[in-house]
Amino acid sequence: MSAIPQDFVRKTAQLSEEVTRPFPNSRKIHVTGSRPDIRVPMREVALTPTQTSADVEENPPVLIYDTSGPYTDPASRIDLLAGLPDIRSSWIGERADTEELSGPTSAFGRARQSDPQLAHLRFEHLRTPRRAKPGRNVTQMHYARQGIITPEMEYVAIRENMRLDELRADPRYAKLLRQHPGQSHGAAIPETITPEFVREEIACGRAIIPANINHPELEPMIIGRNFRVKINTNIGNSALTSSIEEEVEKMVWSARWGGDTLMDLSTGKHIHETREWILRNAPMPIGTVPIYQALEKVDGRPEELTWEIMRDTLIEQAEQGVDYFTIHAGVLLRYVPLTADRLTGIVSRGGSILAKWCLAHHQENFLYTHFAEICEIMKAYDVAFSLGDGLRPGSLADANDAAQFAELETLGELTQIAWQHDVQVMIEGPGHVPLQMVQENMTKELADCFEAPFYTLGPIVTDIAPAYDHITSGMGAANIGWYGTAMLCYVTPKEHLGLPNKEDVREGIITYKIAAHAADLAKGLPGAQIQDNALSKARFEFRWEDQFNLSLDPERAREYHDATLPHQSHKVAHFCSMCGPHFCSMKITQDVRDYAANQRIEDVEAAVAEGMREKAREFREDGAAIYKAV
Amino acid sequence: MSAIPQDFVRKTAQLSEEVTRPFPNSRKIHVTGSRPDIRVPMREVALTPTQTSADVEENPPVLIYDTSGPYTDPASRIDLLAGLPDIRSSWIGERADTEELSGPTSAFGRARQSDPQLAHLRFEHLRTPRRAKPGRNVTQMHYARQGIITPEMEYVAIRENMRLDELRADPRYAKLLRQHPGQSHGAAIPETITPEFVREEIACGRAIIPANINHPELEPMIIGRNFRVKINTNIGNSALTSSIEEEVEKMVWSARWGGDTLMDLSTGKHIHETREWILRNAPMPIGTVPIYQALEKVDGRPEELTWEIMRDTLIEQAEQGVDYFTIHAGVLLRYVPLTADRLTGIVSRGGSILAKWCLAHHQENFLYTHFAEICEIMKAYDVAFSLGDGLRPGSLADANDAAQFAELETLGELTQIAWQHDVQVMIEGPGHVPLQMVQENMTKELADCFEAPFYTLGPIVTDIAPAYDHITSGMGAANIGWYGTAMLCYVTPKEHLGLPNKEDVREGIITYKIAAHAADLAKGLPGAQIQDNALSKARFEFRWEDQFNLSLDPERAREYHDATLPHQSHKVAHFCSMCGPHFCSMKITQDVRDYAANQRIEDVEAAVAEGMREKAREFREDGAAIYKAV
Repeated sequence: MSAIPQDFVRKTAQLSEEVTRPFPNSRKIHVTGSRPDIRVPMREVALTPTQTSADVEENPPVLIYDTSGPYTDPASRIDLLAGLPDIRSSWIGERADTEELSGPTSAFGRARQSDPQLAHLRFEHLRTPRRAKPGRNVTQMHYARQGIITPEMEYVAIRENMRLDELRADPRYAKLLRQHPGQSHGAAIPETITPEFVREEIACGRAIIPANINHPELEPMIIGRNFRVKINTNIGNSALTSSIEEEVEKMVWSARWGGDTLMDLSTGKHIHETREWILRNAPMPIGTVPIYQALEKVDGRPEELTWEIMRDTLIEQAEQGVDYFTIHAGVLLRYVPLTADRLTGIVSRGGSILAKWCLAHHQENFLYTHFAEICEIMKAYDVAFSLGDGLRPGSLADANDAAQFAELETLGELTQIAWQHDVQVMIEGPGHVPLQMVQENMTKELADCFEAPFYTLGPIVTDIAPAYDHITSGMGAANIGWYGTAMLCYVTPKEHLGLPNKEDVREGIITYKIAAHAADLAKGLPGAQIQDNALSKARFEFRWEDQFNLSLDPERAREYHDATLPHQSHKVAHFCSMCGPHFCSMKITQDVRDYAANQRIEDVEAAVAEGMREKAREFREDGAAIYKAV
Repeated sequence: MSAIPQDFVRKTAQLSEEVTRPFPNSRKIHVTGSRPDIRVPMREVALTPTQTSADVEENPPVLIYDTSGPYTDPASRIDLLAGLPDIRSSWIGERADTEELSGPTSAFGRARQSDPQLAHLRFEHLRTPRRAKPGRNVTQMHYARQGIITPEMEYVAIRENMRLDELRADPRYAKLLRQHPGQSHGAAIPETITPEFVREEIACGRAIIPANINHPELEPMIIGRNFRVKINTNIGNSALTSSIEEEVEKMVWSARWGGDTLMDLSTGKHIHETREWILRNAPMPIGTVPIYQALEKVDGRPEELTWEIMRDTLIEQAEQGVDYFTIHAGVLLRYVPLTADRLTGIVSRGGSILAKWCLAHHQENFLYTHFAEICEIMKAYDVAFSLGDGLRPGSLADANDAAQFAELETLGELTQIAWQHDVQVMIEGPGHVPLQMVQENMTKELADCFEAPFYTLGPIVTDIAPAYDHITSGMGAANIGWYGTAMLCYVTPKEHLGLPNKEDVREGIITYKIAAHAADLAKGLPGAQIQDNALSKARFEFRWEDQFNLSLDPERAREYHDATLPHQSHKVAHFCSMCGPHFCSMKITQDVRDYAANQRIEDVEAAVAEGMREKAREFREDGAAIYKAV
């Protein structure tokens, strides 16, 4: 601990105060599976009863899918210096198909571990990495195809299911369970998610559980079209700004606000050390783009990249516990000229690095030619592929063009190779696409990539709103999520302009939680409407506190309310600032209901019907005359 | 002027400084029509040239549809105390079908004008109201049906067209004019908008030009499915907060940021005086919900409303110059019980007022029974109907239900009556609708209301994000705009929580400009992609200033960029903060292009093709073996 600079210690201490407070009126519950060490966290929001003149009606608690990890659990002791509790090592150990290594096997990993100059930056409780025993395959897909339901699969089944069967049996939830039929666009979400269903979806490649055996702190989650739509957040320092502390803090905030996975896109110094800090404290799967680091190892000169450097980087990161790698193996030499007439060329960093390498060497992309060897690495640690769209469009003008779709077809070819190795795959998608062309991306991905989960960045639906690209892309994201995308990569307001700060991350995440939830509702995910119904009921009944507490960002909802009406009395008052005390439509509606009830509604209806008949006759007979006479 | 409180004078002086500065690198141009007094404003953004190693390429200026009125014109002298220049009085006068009244003809208007206690609040340069001569009809629809192309129609044709024919003839714009085909969902937007096309669309009711003869300051605009999608903004003080000054300021900001129309939803004191200030300074059409004011006249007791009070209010506001009225004439007595089992009852203020009135009196909605008389008033001033959806859903749970759609059918019936009077109509739509149910609203509106322009509030696509409802509703708005909605009513972050401040108005407007533009692109509006292409080109070429200047909110784009890289040198540097100087994909792509150019691209392609053929053969023959061997 003496090696940790005081600055960092202070920072982490501050962090635990801010980030570990539970959400208002919420408690962390754990649903236990078939064995006591499967304990799936959920957030339970307690609500106040409805007070009517005649009665008091209980409002049952609402469960919310919880990505925040142990940070919001008062029962957990958070110590960033020690890392999160290890919840998966026993599951991994029981499978008896892995071995503990003596230390990192990558040259780079060994060099970093033995460099005394890095001691002050290094995470101190380094775990010895594990790897598959020779000849063994430790991927969730491999187990699934053997017919094995792993604890990870059972965990995600419970997590996705959100106790829906229990709620269905509980009459207090009858009204809240009302939901519109979805339009699934071919998704087939069952009424209840069973562990066996999870296994089947993973076996056929339609879903993945990114869960490296070296990331045992992970709370497993699933990415697939027949499950909740997920969101990914990005963090990463760059050569110009940011520090380890800031990146770890952003990761924890990302968990709190609802990020399902997180990509560490760091490109600056100390990438290796930053990643270790993040992984050891991350309850969500962590993804990276290994070629960024490989490029740093050759001082930023793409033409000097080699397969050997890349291979060492993949092993280095796999042994740290990275759960999925973006691999731009579809950027083929022959596709590069297809981008020459584009308005915005190649905008993916990985794509442009590989395009440059291909042209410099007049050779095929080494990630493509070594793809089978990459699969061998992936299956030794269970790292999932995120097959990168290096040729994605960087502007509306370039959307859905020959280069983009040629690469997508190659990603399909690579998917089949990965699946021959039982390696999990998802497919990255664009980018910049006008609304009317979004669905083609989904349709083509499903066809070309055999229903492997699609993982899209936005898409942004217009290029004219820098500083608001979380919104331009949120519109595309909601639609493509509805059409079938399994995970949406968030975009922050700073996209195209600068590096996001904490508030930008918050804006980006909430926007994408909205998009993902809108997609779940549109697809008809069972139970998706419970939270909407409960919040709307609270709103209608002027239960302000419940409305805040049920919202995606309770703190901001309260803050915005209080900006106009700060007094505590206004949070129990039956009116709000929009209309003032004498003019509230919700109040009037309640009066209408009371009135109707007092008058005995059947009588009113009968009177109305009679009156209407009379009126209608009158109109039919005199209508034309009336209008002419006026 | 001495009657104006010093506070107000100071405020307006501040206002003109802040709001009248032109947009960066932009100038106001005016396109002249067939007569010199048709001068249609547009914003022209000048761009810097592209510098390549070999050449300098000119980037032609980009035109942007300009809602900001004279406020951004340095040639205009802005004086809120005097109001905007009158640009339509001569057009109205030439038609010789109106007469100047001796003063307001409404009892309320007369009372307010003669009340000495209001002198300090009153707009000082009151214009005498005009009205149609007895037996005359002064609506744009009436003229259109007579085959007359009014100056207003020519004005909007020029405004919609944005000099597109000239751009098409100019080779500098060839690349910028590249655009993807739209998916129009039945809209039929011509390649060029002619005055005659405008006339036809108005004559058949598919579009409206809200333009009260008492609002001659108005810069005419058109609302219809075959034109640019428009956005409406709302302002309004309430009983609890706000002042005249704040509301006028918000109106000017709304114009600047891109609001096409504006509704004054004030419910507090001095509604009449606030409205006068707004109208005299508003370059955009102003809408109101007259029943709000009528209700104030009966001290907030809906059951005490009468047709006579409503009638007087309509005339009062029509003589001030309000361009469209929301009229909730579709809330029929027999529909009210249909809302009793809703999760959130009746949430429209107007709807709930009228429901209460209907039940209290056991009578049909007096707006419905007096609808023909309302038409008589509308056509005497050319006020357009915005037929209100008083029974719109207030939650996802209540979307597309029997009450909502019953009312919509009645709005169709009323549309036909209005059209018998040659009165312009648009139809208001929801509200809260999950994504998969949005299109049904549009389809049903087109069918039930005979293609009258649809004007929707959002819709919000999930209820769980108060404080972010500009975003939840922006997603629904982009989609429904694509499906055919002619105007989108904005929602601010404070929706459901409080009253929007200036920043909230900004967020709401930009979000809705994005939604409207995304819809234009998706429908295939000719020329819609020019701004996207120009901005993307600037982005790709590191022309930072041009990128800012072409964006919807230039000031914020610059601010966000500068938050990470504040120095001026970074706005000309060929990299940005996201990747740092050694790692920019756009830079690498330019290198790739240069490289390919140097190598003579044909040779490279030939070599690539040859190499690929070799590779492909090798893979076909040895592929399986390679993968097995690894």
